[in-house]
Amino acid sequence: MYQVYFEDITVGDVSEFGAYKVTREEIIDFASKYDPQPFHLDEEAAKKSVFGGLCASGWHTCAMLMRMLVDHLQDKGVASMGSPGIDSIKWIRPVMVGDTLHVRASVDAKRDSNSRPNLGLLKGTYLVSNQNGEKVMTMNSNYMVAKRNG
Amino acid sequence: MYQVYFEDITVGDVSEFGAYKVTREEIIDFASKYDPQPFHLDEEAAKKSVFGGLCASGWHTCAMLMRMLVDHLQDKGVASMGSPGIDSIKWIRPVMVGDTLHVRASVDAKRDSNSRPNLGLLKGTYLVSNQNGEKVMTMNSNYMVAKRNG
Repeated sequence: MYQVYFEDITVGDVSEFGAYKVTREEIIDFASKYDPQPFHLDEEAAKKSVFGGLCASGWHTCAMLMRMLVDHLQDKGVASMGSPGIDSIKWIRPVMVGDTLHVRASVDAKRDSNSRPNLGLLKGTYLVSNQNGEKVMTMNSNYMVAKRNG
Repeated sequence: MYQVYFEDITVGDVSEFGAYKVTREEIIDFASKYDPQPFHLDEEAAKKSVFGGLCASGWHTCAMLMRMLVDHLQDKGVASMGSPGIDSIKWIRPVMVGDTLHVRASVDAKRDSNSRPNLGLLKGTYLVSNQNGEKVMTMNSNYMVAKRNG
């Protein structure tokens, strides 16, 4: 079932993946459920805001990153076991209607889990850019990957 | 329009709000769009996982916290101007079908914005608990609030 285990991952590994097209409908759908602020819901209100146009909730950008990441991990067969938490998120630039998002992921650190001998813990940095190569978000994350004979 | 500005917020302020009922339908809807891992999509797969049952994506928990927070800020008339980023998220315990989530928010620090004299920057801690009083997530966040005469 899995092809890539904790032992197969090296600090310094870099991968690039994703091409997520951001639509008006999805921005409004997410925001109406989870972040109903005017600049995420209404084009006219958004034009008058600091963002200058309808833009995605920062949490929507996190969710879109997660979808690109899960697709990538499942495609590679990584034995991913979830995440205990996030060290940092920076929302650098608004994500606008019509943007296409891409991800650059790097492995920053790895160590054995103290409490679960069948798992390893990793730290990674995720850089999300738009179609113009502009950074829109960075994230520093922790995640767990199963060991091969765990 | 607004009633609460940067000047009205004091370090140490605490507020409690929210009662978000987590349904199976919403867990699966969010996960199918943004985090399609088996323990967020399929009851049988989830029972066999470390979580022991169908549970919400951690990003879904962030989104539900955001909805409770936006409702609270709009209810109080806080001149909220968004967030530059997050300092820390910890997913402590899974959020299960049927849970009801509550939030305890505290103000940890405040300072003037260097680049925008009409705004102030705040740091806050958000503690999300379930109906049994168990912590499910903590978040340390940065946010911007307009000054009264900004």
